[in-house]
This record gives sequence, structure tokens and C-alpha cells, in this order.
Amino acid sequence: MAHLLSTSCSLNFSSGCRAYTTKPLIQDSLVFPTSLAFQTSKTPFGRLLLQGGRSQSTCTVHANTLSPSREAPKEPSYGVNESSGGASKSQRVMVIGGDGYCGWATALHLSKKGYEVAIVDSLVRRLFDHQLGLDSLTPISSIHDRIRCWKSLTGKAIELYIGDVCDFEFLSEAFKSFEPDSVVHFGEQRSAPYSMIDRSRAVFTQQNNVMGTLNVLFAIKEYREECHLVKLGTMGEYGTPNIDIEEGYITITHNGRTDTLPYPKQASSFYHLSKVHDSNNIAFTCKAWGIRATDLNQGVVYGVRTDETEMHEELSNRFDYDGVFGTALNRFCVQAAVGHPLTVYGKGGQTRGYLDIRDTVQCVEIAIANPAKAGEFRVFNQFTEQFSVNELAALVTKAGEKLGLDVQTTSVPNPRVEAEEHYYNAKHTKLIELGLKPHLLSDSLLDSLLNFTIKYKDRVDTKQIMPSVSWRKMGAKPRTVTA
Amino acid sequence: MAHLLSTSCSLNFSSGCRAYTTKPLIQDSLVFPTSLAFQTSKTPFGRLLLQGGRSQSTCTVHANTLSPSREAPKEPSYGVNESSGGASKSQRVMVIGGDGYCGWATALHLSKKGYEVAIVDSLVRRLFDHQLGLDSLTPISSIHDRIRCWKSLTGKAIELYIGDVCDFEFLSEAFKSFEPDSVVHFGEQRSAPYSMIDRSRAVFTQQNNVMGTLNVLFAIKEYREECHLVKLGTMGEYGTPNIDIEEGYITITHNGRTDTLPYPKQASSFYHLSKVHDSNNIAFTCKAWGIRATDLNQGVVYGVRTDETEMHEELSNRFDYDGVFGTALNRFCVQAAVGHPLTVYGKGGQTRGYLDIRDTVQCVEIAIANPAKAGEFRVFNQFTEQFSVNELAALVTKAGEKLGLDVQTTSVPNPRVEAEEHYYNAKHTKLIELGLKPHLLSDSLLDSLLNFTIKYKDRVDTKQIMPSVSWRKMGAKPRTVTA
Repeated sequence: MAHLLSTSCSLNFSSGCRAYTTKPLIQDSLVFPTSLAFQTSKTPFGRLLLQGGRSQSTCTVHANTLSPSREAPKEPSYGVNESSGGASKSQRVMVIGGDGYCGWATALHLSKKGYEVAIVDSLVRRLFDHQLGLDSLTPISSIHDRIRCWKSLTGKAIELYIGDVCDFEFLSEAFKSFEPDSVVHFGEQRSAPYSMIDRSRAVFTQQNNVMGTLNVLFAIKEYREECHLVKLGTMGEYGTPNIDIEEGYITITHNGRTDTLPYPKQASSFYHLSKVHDSNNIAFTCKAWGIRATDLNQGVVYGVRTDETEMHEELSNRFDYDGVFGTALNRFCVQAAVGHPLTVYGKGGQTRGYLDIRDTVQCVEIAIANPAKAGEFRVFNQFTEQFSVNELAALVTKAGEKLGLDVQTTSVPNPRVEAEEHYYNAKHTKLIELGLKPHLLSDSLLDSLLNFTIKYKDRVDTKQIMPSVSWRKMGAKPRTVTA
Repeated sequence: MAHLLSTSCSLNFSSGCRAYTTKPLIQDSLVFPTSLAFQTSKTPFGRLLLQGGRSQSTCTVHANTLSPSREAPKEPSYGVNESSGGASKSQRVMVIGGDGYCGWATALHLSKKGYEVAIVDSLVRRLFDHQLGLDSLTPISSIHDRIRCWKSLTGKAIELYIGDVCDFEFLSEAFKSFEPDSVVHFGEQRSAPYSMIDRSRAVFTQQNNVMGTLNVLFAIKEYREECHLVKLGTMGEYGTPNIDIEEGYITITHNGRTDTLPYPKQASSFYHLSKVHDSNNIAFTCKAWGIRATDLNQGVVYGVRTDETEMHEELSNRFDYDGVFGTALNRFCVQAAVGHPLTVYGKGGQTRGYLDIRDTVQCVEIAIANPAKAGEFRVFNQFTEQFSVNELAALVTKAGEKLGLDVQTTSVPNPRVEAEEHYYNAKHTKLIELGLKPHLLSDSLLDSLLNFTIKYKDRVDTKQIMPSVSWRKMGAKPRTVTA
């Protein structure tokens, strides 16, 4: 890491978090990192990004100058799956996209569980908010303050590499420096509406996601061939077929012969398509190079608190409620909190798999603790329950009424191209079999989530609630989507 | 086009071809285009390309200053399919990649049949030859000389737009200027071994192919929404499943329910994967935007002569025999001609669909004459016969012996990751139903092809024959593959 520290700009930190909650804190007795060093190119990141081109910016920050410990995790929750070839438990986990909604919660959870964690993130998600005039419902701290606070509270260091995984030189340095045993890859543009704003965002989404993942695969092959890739996919890759959705593969008997083949995909946005492309690329490298990979086809995530993020306000996770980055249940809770009618797109019969963010972090931990075999491309459907949009609206209405809220529902023209009434039955047993204990959506969780949104309701910009992106009307010309 | 002609550099042509063959020629009584104009950016194309980044070079040439005729094609071969919604026959065809092996033959064929043709090409395929130290078996003329010769022989003008379809500004200008009724998209990096040389070529292949096709889709949506996209895919998208391969879709009954879904894909190189990504992207835009598209999953093409390219030596098509761009049967014929053992990869049981290049041009014409309906994503498997590599070697051996050649066969370690013995039965009836009259591989065709390669055998660089790219050993570091 020497070369990363030998650059021109450094920041001095005072130790600890800015303010403490009333929760009991773990005392920090370790040395606190005292400097950060930056490397940046001459090219302004935002300018290149807006052109849909490849960013050349690499800002590498190594927030922890301590020698990384190679000890075993102290609080293992899930045993190694003996059928996975007896691979030893992964200990050093690189979380790409570790400053995002799922990534941040996961990074803290793994750190808490005793894994050595490094976050790799370009922070471009924060830039999207600036560019689109959006903001998280919750105030969120900088990644530097987040990591500093975590260290102060728990004594656990999280390494930080700020840069773009599409920049292979940067990614190589991060791999050579951190030497991950597992890579959890959340580092993609993850909004379907964002990918449908205009041509440049569509191209950016596919280029960023697909080329970034290709680079991760090459980095594993080149530097850490035993490393287990845990890749976040989406249930949206499958679309809404009129048959049961299996976990990644389906056995087909056709004209008297039988084979087990990749489950057919019918994605319905340039974002969802980018995940399909990733899945196909990864599957090939497993076969050709012996990469070990787990594709987590995740459902729609709701909630915001995890055991770790609620330890301190500076650890707060982001909470998106806008029409671009907000997901269904979270959006409804914010709408209920501010007295806005719940916005059901079209008929509301759209059914999807959902899960609590506390199960996201649990699922990733399970995948890491039970790595895929060399050459195996393993697919898990990562959700716990299915709901239609109308069912979610009814649940939020009922929970809101208990809290004295007057919750209305309105149908808005569907900005997406999707079936609004359809069969949906997706399998999701593999993670359960490995030990997942789901947090099912309950009245008490909805109460808690609604109270949380009410707490922050003065921060809501109601102009961000309605959908602003149309699947059918998107055009080739650059479009500004702002408040 | 005025702005394209108002630039600094012009070339003056003398009329006609350089030399005439003994074949009867159509007399040219039309005005010959007299100037070319270039626009180039300051950034050297090759340098950016080698870095795997996006080329910013746009060199636009409009070789025909005559007003394009809007007359109906004079020699229609295939009627409109009435079931296709009664769309009128497409008359103006943009051939992207029209300077390449299949593209050049197709452009001439369509021009001969009375279509107004424009070629869009960045000419980067010629750059690949320079960079890799390769050359076509046949001498090929510049695109400018080719088009000039064609005009001289037939009186038919082919418009020329030199630029990169990944540059949306260039592509937009080409669309607005030419106003295509059909777009035939050959404009992709089309070699599996090329995509497996190193990381930068893998990333280039997927970026170039996928983003270029996205741009074509956006250009159709923005400027020519009725335009029919005829996209070249590959039979390699399907891999080698243990069940029959259908044309694009398969009806699956599963747990008592039935649906017709996209046929599962199992591509086996970054190139083949790029075509899978394209297919998924195009299918989505058909559904979301009503794009009309035909995906031609083409088999391995052999042969070199078509009725049009054999009219004059300056119209000669390229003929690749090297380990990177050469395809199986063509390579074997060159090997037989120079006394090199036929190089069978591994066991030689690899079975694929094959077709004569004269059928490639016929299939594309059929697809154009029978356009897909608005919103339809139509998939045709474009090949005429199946052969294993061993079967091809036996056929070439037999044909060679008739010509007095001593043909040996050698098995070389398979550079690819693929099944060497497998079930293979791929359907290919849809183009036949629309009127395709196949040129099946016969002794006479093989004689002709062998004689053709013998004619040019002094041009063969035998160092290019053996495979130089390994699927398993490819690395992240830039690699030079040269003679």
C-alpha cells in the first residue's frame, strides 16, 4: 500500500464518532487510523460520467494503516457446507459497492461477525443523488466518517478503496493489497428507472455493470483464483413466466431428451438486462476458468435498520423513497408518513419476492460461509415472501391506521412495461437449507418502519414521489430529471 | 449531408475499376461520384482501441453525391410475407459492417437486387489485421475502390458512412441522412478467439458489440421507428445442449403449467456471450418500444465467391484462414492447399451448423423482404447443414485427393473449452419456409473452394495456421499476438 500513501493530500482525523446514541457501545481500545491519502486523476469524474463514457478517475483511500489481521472470524454464525469441497471458511471479504444501501449494511454485518472487511466503492451513487436532485430520507454520513465511527464503536477496522472497478488498474491494486478470500459485488448501478431515463444512462448502466463485473472476474483469475465471488443479481432477471421460477436452472424434457439448462430470462429494463448479461458472463468463466461463484438473485429489499447500523446515527443506512431509487414497500411507508396516497402502478397485481434488509446481510454471510466449489456457478433466489403491490398497499394501509394515519391509495399510469396481472411462483429454498432464518414481514416490523419514516418525514421532498421515468417514452437525447 | 462534404480533405477519383476480368460487365452510364470528404477527430483510433476504451474517432465518408433513388427494387426475389402485417417491402437498407466478410457480400447482393444500399463501417476489422499481423488469403481492395468498381460495373451507387456505431452522434447523422427502411447489423467484433486473447480484447468485444447494438436500437426508436432490424447473431449462443435446439424459443411444461420462453443460452466465449447480451437487449426493446427485429443465429460460414463479388477482382471478398479469424472449413481448404495437416481441435466431434456464403446473402435478403411485425422479436437459425469437425476433415481430404493433394489430419490440443463429443440437433426450417434454396456442401463446391485456395497459396503465411489463443490461459495482461 506504500504507493497509495505516498501522495500529496492527507487528512487528519480526531478519533471517534461525532455524537453518541443512548445505546451501549463497545469500547475502542485499538489504535485509530490517523491519515488518509488520496490519488486522483486530472479528469473530473462527473463530467465523463455524464457523457456516458468510462470514468478515468481513481481515488484510492486506505483508511486503515494497521496490518490486517489474518485471524479466524470470532463470531461465526454459519458452518462450512461440507459438500462444497471442504474449502476453508473465507476470512477476508471485499465488499464492492460497500457504501450503498445493501453494501453498507453487509459490510458492517460481516465486520461484526469477525471477517476482515474492505469496502471498494467509487461513491458514484452519492453523485447520482446530486445530479438528480434526490436525497436519502435518512441523513447519511460520509464513508470516511462511517468507517471511523465503526472503528471507534467496535474496534474493528474496515479498509477502504475508493475507485471504479471499471478501472482495472485500480481494481488490480485493491486485489493485490487486500488479497480477498471472498468478493461480494454490489458495485453496480442498481435502479431500473435510472437505466430508463435516457440513452446515456442506459448505456452507462450496461457498460458500468457488465464491464465492472468482467474486471472483477479477471482480477480473481489473475490474482486470487481461489476467491469466491458472491454476486448480487436480481429476481427481475426471470421476468414473470407462466411457469414456476426455479433457482437458476431448469430441467427440460423436450422431444424425448432431457437436460438441465440455465433458466430462461426475460428481463424488463436495461438495468435488469445488465444483471442477465453478468450472470451469463460469470457462468462462462466458472466453466472456462474454474471460477467459484454464487449469484444471489435478490428480491425487493425493504427496511433500513440492521443490528449494526442502529448502533449509532453516523452508521445510518440510506433510505430511498423517490421514483428512481425507491423500492416498493419503503416508498409506501414514506408516502403514508407524509399523507401522500400510495402510488400503485397500474392494476397493482405485479407480484414479486421481497425480503428484509436484515435478511440480505444474513444471506450474504451464508453464501460466504458456504462457498461455491471451484468451477461451480451457483444460483440462489434471495427473498423470503411474495407480495403483489396491492397486497403491500393493503398492509401499509392497515398498519398506518393503527398509528392514526389516513392512508389512501391511488393508481397511477404504469411507467413500466410489465404484466399487471400474472402467475408468479418463485422457488427460494436453497438459502433456507443453508440456515437462513427469515424476518418475515409482520405488523410489528411495519409499525417500526412507519414510525421510522414518520421520524424523518420533515426531510421528505414530495416532488420526488411520483414516477418521472417512462419505459415507453424514453429517448435517445440526454434528459435532466430533477426536482 | 452538406456538413459531411464541407471538410478539409478530398480525394479525386478516376472513374471505373483498375482492371477488368473476362466476365461480361454491365455498362455504366451514370455519373460517377467525384469526391470524398473526411471528418476525423484528433484522437488516434488505434491507440484508444488498444487500451480497450471507446474510440472517439469518427471518419464519415459519403461516397455518393447523387440523390438516392426511392424507386422500388427492380429484381425482387422474395415476396412479402402477408402474415407479417402487410408491411411494404423495405427499400433502403443500411448494412452496418458492410466492409466485412459477410457484410460486403450482402451489400453487393442487395444492391444488385435493386435495394438502395448504404454501408456503415468503421473499417476496424482491417486494423485488427494490421495489429495481429494477419492478412486475407485474397487481396482485397479498399472500401472506396470496391464501391467505385461496383458503381462502374453496375451503375448502382452504394452510399458509405465511415464511423463507429458506438459513437451515437455519428450513427444519428447516418440515420437522418440515409433514412433506412431496414438495418442489417453485421458491425460487431466477430471472432471468438479474438475475444479470448486478453482482458482488453474481451472488454472491447463486449463493449463494442453490446453498446453498438444499443445505439442502433436507440437510433431506430428516435429516427426510424418503423425500420426493421436484421441482426446477426450466432448459433454459438445456444451452446451444445443435450436436447434439440429450437429457433429462439422453446415451449416448456413444468409442474403442470406451460409457457413458451426464450431458448436457454450457453455461450462459450466473450464474443458468443456478446451476441447473447444483444439478443436479450433487442428482445426487450421489441416488447417495450415495439421495435421490429429479426435475429439471425448464423452457423459457420464457408466459401468466398458470390455472384456479385466474382464480377471483378476489385470486388473480391476477404478469406480468413488464420487461427483467430479463420472459420473451420475455409481454414481446412487453405491447409490442404499448402500441404499443412488439417488442424482438428481435440477429438473433432464438435458438431455445428454450416452454410455457404451465398446462402448468407440469400437469408438476409429473405429476412428483409419479409419483415418482422412491430414489436416482434423473431429468431431464425441460419444454417443449412450440420457437420462435425471430423466430418469436414474427411470431406476436404477426399476432395484434396481428387486434385492430387496429399492431405493429412492432425489433432491439436483444443484451445477452447467445449464438449468434443455431444448431441447436436438444431432446427432450421423458418428460412426454408420463407423461400431459402440452400447451396449444400457438394464435391463440386469443395473442388472449387480448394482450387481457389490453391490459386492464392503463395500468399499463405503458415505461421498463422496454428491456434494461438487459449481459453483457459487467457490473462488480464495485454498480450501481443503476432506472426
